[in-house]
This record gives sequence, C-alpha cells and structure tokens, in this order.
Amino acid sequence: MYRPEIKVLDCTIRDGGLMNNWNFPKPMVRELYDCLVKAGVDYVELGYRADKRQFSPKDFGPWRFCDEEDLREVAYPSDTTKISVMVDVGRTDYDSILPRDQSIVSMFRVATYAKEIDKAIHLGRHIKDLGYEVTVNIMAASHVLEIELDEALDQLAATDFDVVYLVDSFGYFYTEQIEYLAKKYLSRLKGKQVGIHCHNNQQLAFANTIEAIIHGVNYVDGSIFGMGRAAGNCTTELLLGFLKNPKFNIRPVLYLIEKYFLDLKAQLHWGYEIPYMINGILNKHPRSGLAYMKERQNGSATRSFVDFYNELVEVAEID
Amino acid sequence: MYRPEIKVLDCTIRDGGLMNNWNFPKPMVRELYDCLVKAGVDYVELGYRADKRQFSPKDFGPWRFCDEEDLREVAYPSDTTKISVMVDVGRTDYDSILPRDQSIVSMFRVATYAKEIDKAIHLGRHIKDLGYEVTVNIMAASHVLEIELDEALDQLAATDFDVVYLVDSFGYFYTEQIEYLAKKYLSRLKGKQVGIHCHNNQQLAFANTIEAIIHGVNYVDGSIFGMGRAAGNCTTELLLGFLKNPKFNIRPVLYLIEKYFLDLKAQLHWGYEIPYMINGILNKHPRSGLAYMKERQNGSATRSFVDFYNELVEVAEID
Repeated sequence: MYRPEIKVLDCTIRDGGLMNNWNFPKPMVRELYDCLVKAGVDYVELGYRADKRQFSPKDFGPWRFCDEEDLREVAYPSDTTKISVMVDVGRTDYDSILPRDQSIVSMFRVATYAKEIDKAIHLGRHIKDLGYEVTVNIMAASHVLEIELDEALDQLAATDFDVVYLVDSFGYFYTEQIEYLAKKYLSRLKGKQVGIHCHNNQQLAFANTIEAIIHGVNYVDGSIFGMGRAAGNCTTELLLGFLKNPKFNIRPVLYLIEKYFLDLKAQLHWGYEIPYMINGILNKHPRSGLAYMKERQNGSATRSFVDFYNELVEVAEID
Repeated sequence: MYRPEIKVLDCTIRDGGLMNNWNFPKPMVRELYDCLVKAGVDYVELGYRADKRQFSPKDFGPWRFCDEEDLREVAYPSDTTKISVMVDVGRTDYDSILPRDQSIVSMFRVATYAKEIDKAIHLGRHIKDLGYEVTVNIMAASHVLEIELDEALDQLAATDFDVVYLVDSFGYFYTEQIEYLAKKYLSRLKGKQVGIHCHNNQQLAFANTIEAIIHGVNYVDGSIFGMGRAAGNCTTELLLGFLKNPKFNIRPVLYLIEKYFLDLKAQLHWGYEIPYMINGILNKHPRSGLAYMKERQNGSATRSFVDFYNELVEVAEID
C-alpha cells in the first residue's frame, strides 16, 4: 500500500506506558525517538499530559505528564516527524498546555468516551486555539450505541479539528465491523481525516488497520513490538513492512525491539494472552484481564482460564 | 459467522509436531483429542504418515508416523469428530495405508507443492480408492506462478477429491490476496470444497481465515494457542470464538492451553517472533528464521535482527 497521505503514529511510550506506569528511562526514550525519526514515522506520541492535581508525579514516570522540559530532553523538532501528546477528558489541566510557539509538541490527541463528547470538544477547542493540531479519539467504540456515535460524529464534523479516530479499545471488532465503521466515520466527517487505533486481543489489530486503510483511513497507530495495554496494539514494524512509501525504513524499529522490547515484553506480558483474548471475544474492558494476569504472575490466582471465561460470560449476562 | 457447512480442523499435533519432532506423550494426545471432541471440532489431525524407510522412528515421536495402533491408543471414532492424517508427496509408503474399514482415520490430507501436483493426484487417487476422504493441500501458494497454480487447480477440479486447500505456508499474504485466491480456488474448483491453512508470521492468520470464510471457504485449520511451525497458525480458540454454530465450545480448548500449551510455548517459542515476522514480510521459507531463533536461544547468534533482515533482503535480490 502506497498512499502518500498515510500518516503513521507510533504510540509505544503513551500506550505502552499503561503497562509500566510510564517508567521509561530518558536515554531509552531519546534513542526510541531518534530511531523512529530514522524509520520515517510521521508522529511519535510520547505520553499523556495528565493533571498533576489528580495524579502525583511521585507515582508515575515522566511520560504520564510530558512536561515540556522532559520532552525537550528526549525529542527534537524534525522536518519529517512530529511530536504528539494525549490528553484525557476530565484529567487535563487546561493551563498545563503552552501556546504552540513555546512547545515542541505539534499535535494533541483528545481521548474521550462518546458520552463526554461535549467536554472533548471544549478541550479540543482550547488546544486548537493555542495553535496545535487536534484529534479526537472516541474510545471503546464497541460499547457505544450507534445513535450516540452518530451524534458524536456529527458534532465533530462541525469542528475544525484535524482528525477523528476510530478506537477499538477492547480488541473486539472483526474486519467487517471495521469496514462498516470506517465508512461511517469517513462519510459523517466529510473532509476530515479519520484515524484508527486497534488493540490486539483477537490478533486482528494489524488486519483491522489495513482494512481501515483500504477504506480511506489515513492516520494509523502502531507501537513497537505491539507494546500497549493488555493485548497491545498493531505493531509498528508490521505497518512499516506493509506500507510501500519509500520514506519508511523498518530497520531502526528492529534495532529497538532487540535492544529494549524483547526484555520488556518478557517482564510485562502484553500481547496475545488468553485472559486478554477472552476480554476481546466478550467485548470487555481489559481491566479484568489485567488483574487476572497479575494474579497468575504473582502466584495468587485461584481461577482457571475456564473459570475466568465463565465469570465474564455471566457478567455479560447481567451487565 | 454461522454456516453449518464450516468444518474446523485442529492440526495442533501435526503442525505443532514440526516444533518438537512430534514428541507429544500419549496421555496428552488422548486428553487433547477428548477435549477437541467436546469442543465440537470437526476434524483432529493427529500427525503425518511418514515413510519409515525415509524417516527412522528412533528420531521422532509417534505422530510423525501415525501407526494405526498408536492412533487407537489416543483417539476413538465419534459421531461429531473425525480423525485426519497428513501425507507428504514423495514421503509416503503407499502400503502403509490400510483400507478405510480397517482404520479409524477418516481423512488423509495430501500436502504437495504445485509442481508435484501429478504425484499428489496419484497418491490421492490411491487413498481415495481405499475409501477415505481426500484433500490436496497446495503448499507455499505465495511461491507459485499463477499459470502453474491455475493448471494445478484445473487438474484437481477433474478429480473426485473432497477438498483443496489454499495454504499460506510463509505467512506472506495480506487479506486482499486471500480474497483473490479464495475466489480463484472456488471458481476453478466448481462444486468442490475449499479449505484454508494460514501461518501467523504477520499476525494475519486469523484475519485471513475469516476473509476466506466470507468468500465461501468452508474448511478451516486452527491449532491450539497457534502451535505450529515457526510463527504458528490461526488459533483454534479464536476460531471457536468467531464461529457462532452452537455446537462449538471454547472451554475445553482453554483448559488444554492452561494445562499444556503455556509451558510448551515458553519452551518452543512458536508465534510472533521477529525472525518469523521477517520471513513473512519477505515471503521466505521459515527455515532461516527457525535456524536463527535456535542460534539466539542457545547463545551462539552473532547476527542482530537488522543483520538477519539485511541478509534475507539480499537473498531475495539474487534468488
């Protein structure tokens, strides 16, 4: 696939940080950023800008907050690669965002649930007015009533935000559903770019990302070796192998995997694990799978895979 | 997806045996078979019927040969689940195959390269005449010239064999290519069933299997926890989660994963590993990835991931 409009965003530090409380050492993040520039990745998302009144910096690594000075220690402006930071609706201090010309950040991505779309638009407008590119990422699309999704998309269509993302937070969607939703987003958001962010609970993150690309989605998320919450994401290396734009180069990503991510994965166990697979099949938030994986790892688990499955099926029935 | 014609074949012991020389203990295979019957799987493939004049039983576990008496120790005829055995063209002793009424095997699958299709048809006819269901699995479809593939399919269309399989041995195909090939197989083999067997080098085995089902393929291969050569296969548990036929039950497969396959995977490292991913992206036989993984595991590797990638790219250029 070669379409020059396609933009790859690597969200390793941001989404992967959900697995290690954003405790990535600065020298590592510096090298990661540098390699992703060399790989031709369009955006590197270096974390969240969380509200320090709600989250104590003592409890998290720096990429939970992405202070301007921390970003400048690891990243630099480049002609080819831009810096992105994510903000959560309800967890963001408006005053923590500097005017664009005082920051090396190019883009903020506003993560929201559909029901909080008004707050997301309010926050997005604030950031847009400061001069940044703005995206809105509607999380957990597999839990949204279609009528509410349509309404949210219509509201977003009326904004001047740059991109709206389809987010399969629970790794639930099959490819046919991605086709349906991608077409919906593109038609309701006429003229706006659409992005996709997939989780890999059913080993469909890469396939669903390709499917979205086929139907016109131009902003695609990947993470190195798939590092991300629970089952993780579409992998950046597979995306770079698929996209034929000669600006992309897979080698710096292979280098990073060998140097950092084999060990990290052995410690943190994101990826295709049965508890996360069960979450995905049953369209459930990954928190139950993460808690169960932790029990299994520390030896306190009393439930078998089958017990866990049965429990979630029952929860589904009374939800 | 609910289409009663869809048949799931679990090939864990056969394809997984390529990772451990078919050294699965009999009590394990007995429990596996029993659980797969309970899971509603239509066929269980218990191994290869290799020629003992070419392969010494001293060097392999019993499922390399699938002697009738070994099969009878672990499996039993059932109304819902049939036993399958694979035979390789050029590696099969015709006399080792009993008449159907003296065997508990229902189906033999003839694995062949397209260029050996005449030998495959000869072997298949012999087995069909003995009373079995016969399939022909054209391996390495991503290395076959289209004109040769078409010819092979036309020859197979003229047989009375039951199923022809599209096999992505190198985990190279994207979903669009699977659509193209599935449509070709179905139209050239008019009236015959088509099957699919995918490898997971690019995390596309499940997605490509679904794609094939959407276009009319009814015989689908899975293996438990994806156990299979190198990157492994489409997983049986994901297939059972996807297929809505109420006869399927995922729980016995979850039980087997917990009891056997977590440990096996930690030892044998099939699945998404970077050397296999590189093989897939570059459409290469997995033997180079397997050899390199072995070097990495025993500490003798001198090549980095990037070295390995560069080496295979160069091989591609002079191939």
